Amino acid sequence: MTTPEPLAPGATIGILGGGQLGRMLAVAASRLGYKTCVLDPGGDCPASHVANFHLKAEFDDEDALARLGEACDVVTFEFENIQTDTLARIGGGTPVRPGRRALKASQDRLVEKAFLGDLGLSTVPFAAVDDPQDLAEAMDEIGTPGLLKTRRMGYDGKGQARIDGRADAKPALAAMAGAPAIYEGLATFTAEVSVIAARGLTGEVACYEPGENLHEGGILRRTAVPARLSNAQRTDAVLLAGRILNALDYVGVMGVELFVTRDALLVNEIAPRVHNSGHWTQAGCAVDQFEQHIRAIAGLPLGDGSRHADVAMENLIGADIDRLPELLRDPAAAIHLYGKGAARPGRKMGHVNRVTGAAG
Amino acid sequence: MTTPEPLAPGATIGILGGGQLGRMLAVAASRLGYKTCVLDPGGDCPASHVANFHLKAEFDDEDALARLGEACDVVTFEFENIQTDTLARIGGGTPVRPGRRALKASQDRLVEKAFLGDLGLSTVPFAAVDDPQDLAEAMDEIGTPGLLKTRRMGYDGKGQARIDGRADAKPALAAMAGAPAIYEGLATFTAEVSVIAARGLTGEVACYEPGENLHEGGILRRTAVPARLSNAQRTDAVLLAGRILNALDYVGVMGVELFVTRDALLVNEIAPRVHNSGHWTQAGCAVDQFEQHIRAIAGLPLGDGSRHADVAMENLIGADIDRLPELLRDPAAAIHLYGKGAARPGRKMGHVNRVTGAAG
Repeated sequence: MTTPEPLAPGATIGILGGGQLGRMLAVAASRLGYKTCVLDPGGDCPASHVANFHLKAEFDDEDALARLGEACDVVTFEFENIQTDTLARIGGGTPVRPGRRALKASQDRLVEKAFLGDLGLSTVPFAAVDDPQDLAEAMDEIGTPGLLKTRRMGYDGKGQARIDGRADAKPALAAMAGAPAIYEGLATFTAEVSVIAARGLTGEVACYEPGENLHEGGILRRTAVPARLSNAQRTDAVLLAGRILNALDYVGVMGVELFVTRDALLVNEIAPRVHNSGHWTQAGCAVDQFEQHIRAIAGLPLGDGSRHADVAMENLIGADIDRLPELLRDPAAAIHLYGKGAARPGRKMGHVNRVTGAAG
Repeated sequence: MTTPEPLAPGATIGILGGGQLGRMLAVAASRLGYKTCVLDPGGDCPASHVANFHLKAEFDDEDALARLGEACDVVTFEFENIQTDTLARIGGGTPVRPGRRALKASQDRLVEKAFLGDLGLSTVPFAAVDDPQDLAEAMDEIGTPGLLKTRRMGYDGKGQARIDGRADAKPALAAMAGAPAIYEGLATFTAEVSVIAARGLTGEVACYEPGENLHEGGILRRTAVPARLSNAQRTDAVLLAGRILNALDYVGVMGVELFVTRDALLVNEIAPRVHNSGHWTQAGCAVDQFEQHIRAIAGLPLGDGSRHADVAMENLIGADIDRLPELLRDPAAAIHLYGKGAARPGRKMGHVNRVTGAAG
């Protein structure tokens, strides 16, 4: 097998999705001398502000997908809820990285957990739920409390319902609106961490140190490095992430969310893209997660994931943006706004990184 | 006097000049949620890759200048060789920051040195040279070696000729091609440093710590912080820069280049814009010089200039870009390419920042 040539500066990278992740990917691509073309239906989407080109089209627009491929040297995406058919319609024989396999493994929570189990990795107990009978059996077997989740299209706590006892079963199932679902036991964890892992075109893997996450209402609020983990846990988390990427023959950055319990690391979720819990790398590393992803899909050598600083990342969600005047007066705050208009509840408007010390 | 309202996120910032400085200003503006409109005649200029809008027009295109002002909430520039008339043609009554006064003080080396002298600051000895007689007198008075420079439009060592003795006078004057010139004595300095200073709309001043510069062939090669300066020199350099900004009622970032001699700090040059010797702030500070400039012209609070890391910045000039594969393999190198095409000798293609330690 020959090693593919890396993309030369001046090449164009296509990005499906024009949100904040696409925006920060576009800026990272520009730092490496690449041009970017974003496909997104939103006329004023965040990534369009900093990309060279914007194809304003729906994600199932066959003509636009064909043109995107023809205009670009490689195509990537900023969100995993893409129909795998979409990728097949990208024109010009242009490679899409990461590819179908990673999308398929992460789009459906049931497929995802089965994949992780096949790899010998631990997850919370789970069962497929298509009807009231399935749910009753799952609750018997797994117990309560638990979470009923749609198998597909969930993010930021959407498409989820908590079940503490029998009485919650019916409304929870109703909340799924007929979509195939999965019942998951609730883990008793001491910490939530995530590993931002990358794998290059030639198979090398580089991981950032796990960050410790704080979620509120299903949405990430904060990530801090270093996480409160033992050295053994840190090593295990990174090795486990590497196994996932290798098994998928993955190219790019992946976010691997873990629950830390007293005696295990449970994989909660994998996201085949740059990840909110990796934004701290912008302040702590020579090569941040966005550039790392661009390097991977462009066939360049990866950064080694090392960090030179302790960092705390805080999301600005909805009305948090009203704190902007105060944040601007905080000399330690590195502010990243996403260029979005209205601050709706739950909408990610930006984030702030703070260097909290030199890396120990 | 009422304090002007700061620009709200979503406002548009106009940038005259679409080179690498405009490019990095546009990215910094996007981090604060602003949109950008670049005016530059180059169809594929570096800043156009990351700006929202690109007005492809000459800098003296009256119609384009009128439109730029009308489309933007504030206008700034990335280079000082702008006709001051140009600023007057910017439409819509839109403020231009920094303004005419700073441009006038820095565009002409003779005016600049006179301004600095009036402020009580030291410079190398100098004299205006319009003809061979002037030059002969200047050489008598100031001595040799010295430099003959065009009064206007010089940068990166262009428009300069070294004079070591009588024989060099005629060719040096010929090299000025009839342009008004200035003869400067050559300083015997122990170090070249620069202060990246900022002044906000309400008059507050914030300076970054002086960086130590290494020039080769008139072009900046490297900047490192901390500079090898005594605490007293460090303080003097920063105070002196603040005096310059206050005297000009300046708004924005300014680069102040200094020669450090055994017993004085001589001001070599002021640049009313973000400055190559301030690129290290991207790796060492929560608020880098580009964001600091945007904050100043937008009427936002300034970052305090503090740094959390020691940094070495290296320019990639001309064929240096051939070292890219090796730089990509250096995990400590934070690479910034400018998206330029051909690598001509002397052309700045990018730069690299390396964190060399935690700030002491």
